[in-house]
Amino acid sequence: MKVTVSRKAHFNAAHRLYRKDWSMEKNDQVFGKCNNPNFHGHNYELIVSVTGQINPETGYLIDIKDLVDIIYEEVELKFDHKNLNLDVPEFQELNPTAENIVVVIWNKIRKKIPSEMDLEITLYETPRNFVTYKGE
Amino acid sequence: MKVTVSRKAHFNAAHRLYRKDWSMEKNDQVFGKCNNPNFHGHNYELIVSVTGQINPETGYLIDIKDLVDIIYEEVELKFDHKNLNLDVPEFQELNPTAENIVVVIWNKIRKKIPSEMDLEITLYETPRNFVTYKGE
Amino acid sequence: MKVTVSRKAHFNAAHRLYRKDWSMEKNDQVFGKCNNPNFHGHNYELIVSVTGQINPETGYLIDIKDLVDIIYEEVELKFDHKNLNLDVPEFQELNPTAENIVVVIWNKIRKKIPSEMDLEITLYETPRNFVTYKGE
Amino acid sequence: MKVTVSRKAHFNAAHRLYRKDWSMEKNDQVFGKCNNPNFHGHNYELIVSVTGQINPETGYLIDIKDLVDIIYEEVELKFDHKNLNLDVPEFQELNPTAENIVVVIWNKIRKKIPSEMDLEITLYETPRNFVTYKGE
Amino acid sequence: MKVTVSRKAHFNAAHRLYRKDWSMEKNDQVFGKCNNPNFHGHNYELIVSVTGQINPETGYLIDIKDLVDIIYEEVELKFDHKNLNLDVPEFQELNPTAENIVVVIWNKIRKKIPSEMDLEITLYETPRNFVTYKGE
Amino acid sequence: MKVTVSRKAHFNAAHRLYRKDWSMEKNDQVFGKCNNPNFHGHNYELIVSVTGQINPETGYLIDIKDLVDIIYEEVELKFDHKNLNLDVPEFQELNPTAENIVVVIWNKIRKKIPSEMDLEITLYETPRNFVTYKGE
Repeated sequence: MKVTVSRKAHFNAAHRLYRKDWSMEKNDQVFGKCNNPNFHGHNYELIVSVTGQINPETGYLIDIKDLVDIIYEEVELKFDHKNLNLDVPEFQELNPTAENIVVVIWNKIRKKIPSEMDLEITLYETPRNFVTYKGE
Repeated sequence: MKVTVSRKAHFNAAHRLYRKDWSMEKNDQVFGKCNNPNFHGHNYELIVSVTGQINPETGYLIDIKDLVDIIYEEVELKFDHKNLNLDVPEFQELNPTAENIVVVIWNKIRKKIPSEMDLEITLYETPRNFVTYKGE
Repeated sequence: MKVTVSRKAHFNAAHRLYRKDWSMEKNDQVFGKCNNPNFHGHNYELIVSVTGQINPETGYLIDIKDLVDIIYEEVELKFDHKNLNLDVPEFQELNPTAENIVVVIWNKIRKKIPSEMDLEITLYETPRNFVTYKGE
Repeated sequence: MKVTVSRKAHFNAAHRLYRKDWSMEKNDQVFGKCNNPNFHGHNYELIVSVTGQINPETGYLIDIKDLVDIIYEEVELKFDHKNLNLDVPEFQELNPTAENIVVVIWNKIRKKIPSEMDLEITLYETPRNFVTYKGE
Repeated sequence: MKVTVSRKAHFNAAHRLYRKDWSMEKNDQVFGKCNNPNFHGHNYELIVSVTGQINPETGYLIDIKDLVDIIYEEVELKFDHKNLNLDVPEFQELNPTAENIVVVIWNKIRKKIPSEMDLEITLYETPRNFVTYKGE
Repeated sequence: MKVTVSRKAHFNAAHRLYRKDWSMEKNDQVFGKCNNPNFHGHNYELIVSVTGQINPETGYLIDIKDLVDIIYEEVELKFDHKNLNLDVPEFQELNPTAENIVVVIWNKIRKKIPSEMDLEITLYETPRNFVTYKGE
């Protein structure tokens, strides 16, 4: 019996959308007010979903406490109360759009999840804008 | 890297569930209080989800402002503060059930989304009743 | 010990904002798209809050089942899946703005709540617009 | 045209996570504070999603009132205000983890849904922990 | 300038509503299915609101981390994953209705909040039933 | 009949909590990770509540469109996608804690609301932390 177990988490961060190799005009044209050089920020909400077989001995797919710890170490500790552009190495050269952030988070958590389980991540940048990645 | 970008929107509308070619009795039997001839209404919530490859140049799948504009022109402008049965041409002969509304909205938005991207729409008729269509 | 016990409920209804004694132009000017002659509608959410002393024998202020029944009889049965302008006697001559609806509901529920308790009603017309009345 | 119709429901219940054939120490080690011998509890939220073809005559996939009745009879009547371990036969020998509960609910509802329709159930144990099962 | 700072928290617990000095029949009549001798349970959500003057030096009324710690020590540590009737001394002789629980929590937190600040607590037993107490 | 009309709005912003006249050590001690020199950010949610007499002619306390415009001009236009410390004049010398932000917003909106109406503002910094100010 294959189930999906999901855990919600969150982190607060500042970011700016722009490319260093583009002019301010081009960045403004493409990224609009998200290109504020002084940054803006979000309460990011995260849903981490793991899919696999239920362990018949425990009735668990995965111990939710282990999932909470993985999210804390890989995401909250690194991203919470940070400036994504300046404080997080993965975004030194990568534009921190919601699309790119969700892929980075997926790669970080993927390493910690047993390989026989599938992983899907949804990232809410605002309550009305969100992005999902499943490693495909 | 294939991601899904989702945007929530909403519109308020009146509707009535019934078939013109059925008797009032049969309509009452099938559609119950939704067949009130004076109409009732809902705050419809909409989630529009687009799936495709991230553009490596911008880090976007699709500019969310473009998605907001498409939803405004195709859905909010046509459906918001309207009577679906009387004011919206698509429901002149089509019963505005949540199932039929979500298919109509999908067809309207599908024309505006690049053909290489997939589209899925979820429509909440109430916070507890919702319908999803992905064009299959 | 004085506590406030609150219960959430909801109803779906159609309405139109206008005055019969005003021209269409004036109604449009004041009520905008809410003046659609074919009506529009909402999922109204309701919070009914009763304040008074805890009964030391039961530990209840009021049996929540009684409150549920009062809301059902006074509000849901009369307003749910209705056209407020056409089906609800209170709005035959009263414009069904959120402000007027919440006062009408307060008056209907007030009669059923013990007189030593205070009553406050909040009505959500949409998730972002709501109105509160406490009988003052 | 294949759509998915979803309905949210809820029930409140007590439970304890443990195996009778394990020592208290081993149960504590695996299930932590969820192994409280005096039980703890949750407001379980349930999303029941049915997928199939829209009936062109009614515009319905399934009458939502029928779905409400099925959920009431199979889930709410049996689980609401119960102790899952002591009051619900399915969990006499089965550990009531969210994973096992969602499978039990799926099996109970599956019998009542037309065989040509697909069924997926999501169970929220808390607003931040949830599990999905689709019978695979 | 007097502001109110609020913090949401939560705990999961089992309980049973009944009086030891009443017969099973009388308890059933008054407390209905909440009188299940095997208990049921809830995800209780808590809003702790503190009112007072902003400290002009820090711009804080109270450090939210201090409020988080107080809620953890006084409420979460004592109530989370517990059986309120059996595990929590305050309810040995007091019926754990939402009304009584909110008063107990208010008294526990009141001792830790500076006396010049006001305190109000709201306790959600379910998303639709909640109780507020402000010490009056 | 005195009612309260409320409108929800939101803005996304970066900020840093610190005092220029304190050492980095003291700022770290008091403001912790909120003192990140590179800033962090939030999706701020705002509830603007206006209290007064219903206008018997229109059934409105205040036209919600006017309230939407006031919030747009006074708050969204000035704060959305900004760095509160660097881009917003009011916080050049004032620490942008939630407490100080809500007072600043109250003062800006107060000027635009008719003087016979009361005003209360609630600002959510995160879904679990929020602050209310009513000008007292």
